Amino acid sequence: MTTRLAAELLGTFVLVFGGCGSAIFAASVLSADNPNVNMGIGFVGVSLAFGLTVLTMAYAVGHISGGHFNPAVTLGAFLSRRVEGAAVLPYMAAQVVGASVAGGVLYLIASGKEGFSAVESGFATNGYGDLSPDGYSLVAVLLAEVVLTAIFLYVILGATDRRAPQGFAPIAIGLALTLIHLISIPISNTSVNPARSLGVAWFAGSEPLVQVWAFILAPLLGAAIAGLTYRLIFPDQSDHVMEEIGS
Amino acid sequence: MTTRLAAELLGTFVLVFGGCGSAIFAASVLSADNPNVNMGIGFVGVSLAFGLTVLTMAYAVGHISGGHFNPAVTLGAFLSRRVEGAAVLPYMAAQVVGASVAGGVLYLIASGKEGFSAVESGFATNGYGDLSPDGYSLVAVLLAEVVLTAIFLYVILGATDRRAPQGFAPIAIGLALTLIHLISIPISNTSVNPARSLGVAWFAGSEPLVQVWAFILAPLLGAAIAGLTYRLIFPDQSDHVMEEIGS
Amino acid sequence: MTTRLAAELLGTFVLVFGGCGSAIFAASVLSADNPNVNMGIGFVGVSLAFGLTVLTMAYAVGHISGGHFNPAVTLGAFLSRRVEGAAVLPYMAAQVVGASVAGGVLYLIASGKEGFSAVESGFATNGYGDLSPDGYSLVAVLLAEVVLTAIFLYVILGATDRRAPQGFAPIAIGLALTLIHLISIPISNTSVNPARSLGVAWFAGSEPLVQVWAFILAPLLGAAIAGLTYRLIFPDQSDHVMEEIGS
Amino acid sequence: MTTRLAAELLGTFVLVFGGCGSAIFAASVLSADNPNVNMGIGFVGVSLAFGLTVLTMAYAVGHISGGHFNPAVTLGAFLSRRVEGAAVLPYMAAQVVGASVAGGVLYLIASGKEGFSAVESGFATNGYGDLSPDGYSLVAVLLAEVVLTAIFLYVILGATDRRAPQGFAPIAIGLALTLIHLISIPISNTSVNPARSLGVAWFAGSEPLVQVWAFILAPLLGAAIAGLTYRLIFPDQSDHVMEEIGS
Repeated sequence: MTTRLAAELLGTFVLVFGGCGSAIFAASVLSADNPNVNMGIGFVGVSLAFGLTVLTMAYAVGHISGGHFNPAVTLGAFLSRRVEGAAVLPYMAAQVVGASVAGGVLYLIASGKEGFSAVESGFATNGYGDLSPDGYSLVAVLLAEVVLTAIFLYVILGATDRRAPQGFAPIAIGLALTLIHLISIPISNTSVNPARSLGVAWFAGSEPLVQVWAFILAPLLGAAIAGLTYRLIFPDQSDHVMEEIGS
Repeated sequence: MTTRLAAELLGTFVLVFGGCGSAIFAASVLSADNPNVNMGIGFVGVSLAFGLTVLTMAYAVGHISGGHFNPAVTLGAFLSRRVEGAAVLPYMAAQVVGASVAGGVLYLIASGKEGFSAVESGFATNGYGDLSPDGYSLVAVLLAEVVLTAIFLYVILGATDRRAPQGFAPIAIGLALTLIHLISIPISNTSVNPARSLGVAWFAGSEPLVQVWAFILAPLLGAAIAGLTYRLIFPDQSDHVMEEIGS
Repeated sequence: MTTRLAAELLGTFVLVFGGCGSAIFAASVLSADNPNVNMGIGFVGVSLAFGLTVLTMAYAVGHISGGHFNPAVTLGAFLSRRVEGAAVLPYMAAQVVGASVAGGVLYLIASGKEGFSAVESGFATNGYGDLSPDGYSLVAVLLAEVVLTAIFLYVILGATDRRAPQGFAPIAIGLALTLIHLISIPISNTSVNPARSLGVAWFAGSEPLVQVWAFILAPLLGAAIAGLTYRLIFPDQSDHVMEEIGS
Repeated sequence: MTTRLAAELLGTFVLVFGGCGSAIFAASVLSADNPNVNMGIGFVGVSLAFGLTVLTMAYAVGHISGGHFNPAVTLGAFLSRRVEGAAVLPYMAAQVVGASVAGGVLYLIASGKEGFSAVESGFATNGYGDLSPDGYSLVAVLLAEVVLTAIFLYVILGATDRRAPQGFAPIAIGLALTLIHLISIPISNTSVNPARSLGVAWFAGSEPLVQVWAFILAPLLGAAIAGLTYRLIFPDQSDHVMEEIGS
């Protein structure tokens, strides 16, 4: 179990360091020659970065831990009998620790640029209402996060099904996370992952932390819906215990 | 059959929710600091999103239903003897239902932003003439949609051929849809899928609905051409019934 | 052989229709709200489109013809003993026909937008000097095209080597073409493919046609260098005849 | 060994020619019609290009040499017992030669555009402080390079582990390099590879060359940390000698 928890901690570290890091450092970097030109990666690049953290780490350590890197995924995997109950809380703890350490390292690096302020920049935190990147209401944010996390879990459970092509699941799952970000960064800055939300919320002042409950609740709810319904909707193919995403 | 229809409904839901959703929420999000900078995903991001809906859902449920998610694909698969005739109409119905439910959920979320108007924004509908994003005529739109849907079907039928490498078809097919969008969003906002067109047309006023016939007719025509000619052009390799895209 | 030639014709049609089409229709589409914002796909999207034409068509018909879609590739494959001599000229002819038909269909669709001029827009042709997108000299263009085509062939010959992982070659080869475009669109608008250059040059007036010799010569030279040296540099692994890229 | 060194030299040539070349030629190409619009590929395209050099060349020659293309990777592979000690220095020498030749060819092509100056443009060199693209301090740069190179090595060692899915490692490793660039181009212009840093530093005047020590030291340190700890963290799975990344 220690090895599995190390894999989850490392994977979630990379998810937050890479996904949130790309948003913090690289989303908006205006050209020195023309401030109307953004050389940075925008929401497309951030979406790609989040997906690639999962794609790469699922190939790297998915055969050890299953490559959840996300408490909502662990919950959904448990409810669809893909992971044993005794692993749920340790997995979630390792994920939150990995995410929070990543937030701290990002803070250290970001502080190496003059004028950096985690509070003013938002530090890649999630939010609704005034903190939604494009001004979406709490209800819209909750609905989007629930639906998107459910979709994420259906992709995960389906692509790791034993009848699916073997070896491709990290591609499907990683690119599903890219897809989810392409849709919803303007809505909520995209969570679908309570550990990712917590990992950066510690560092950005009180406002994002006050809203972080929504990004714990909604992803867990979406994952629970998918985890509980997957075996009902697709009965013939979910009667086995998942051993690993990465294989 | 119920399980297969559930897979088609879910897959087409994701296609419209993800593809059209990325266009509605994220294509254009001007920077708060500089309105000359678009932080949003533009046509590149929307193209990627559409392709990733198919790539991910074909890995997730392709081994159940074949992963059509598109009435034109179902028609082409039937005409090239890859799916049985009894499945055609139920598949198409499930696809239109999934697409339309997705349109409704998108409408609910979009309404959570002040000032949203589905009619004014276009709501990711397809169109020609005045409703073409870059002003293309009806003839140009019909020609593009027929040619692109035929290409799509050749890729689908070829990549799922038993002599093609196994397991890679969802990558080829999903990225073919990305390619198709990279070419034709400015022309017609890209359909190649009657269910996708209908799914959002219900919500954007009368004008897109009046034009939607073109995006039912042209994709079906393009798919029929490819479905009927595939076995003639590539005779040695199409004498088997496709069981699944995802395997 | 007819089936193989049909595969080459169709694949090269898609390469030009998709790659050049994305450049013609979608590279630059300024926002109606703000002409300082390009909603179009830029050089990143065009690079992606070119690569995806090869990736998708190599999975679709690579198991039939080898998936060359490019006279330079056919020459390099012949010189490294991957394709028989009798196939070289028929392959090249099918490629040029497919490319030219694609150029014609693109012209028809583009004419459906008011004010279109193939001569003024350049119609995605290749060029040096005054016709280089960013003003590169003939020598720089020739050097870039030779080096990039040689790299392309090394990737093709290596990824289809029997000791390489099976089934992945279309991904490696398609994304190599994306890479090549990411580097060199500003230099020459990127050819590395005489058929691609000819396919659109017919339609854009006399100036690109006068320069097209460079985009026949340089790719063939680069491919010949790679084809002749591959077996010398990597001797243990090239003593077999390639049957197909797509398997 | 000669064949393996040729593979490393060629692969590192492509890495620098493609990655740095995309930055030099294509990152910023302002539209002739509107200088507020960048048609170029920005940091997203450069990130993609770097990753695709490794993805494509690992499929092409990874089965020959292991596909390191990077002295830090060779060090980490040695410390985790994936490559024999006698290969370390020859590999590193081949990589630096390949990178430097690529820098020279890039210089020749770039000189074909009027007004080119390698010193003024930076020539895709790495830097900290005044030479950091977005003004990050030496400490921030060192921290980022160490952490990112360690992540890179964990992905490489994990994805080539014999228990990981076979054949997918070049995808995971190449896209990990894309991810790393999406995060850190604004910080240090991204090295994680001493050969890449040296290959262009020769040509851009004295300032980048004075700073290049940081981009030799930090990547080697990060790779050493990962190489030494991988077998401790994931004990059951690292007791074999890697033969090739590409298989």
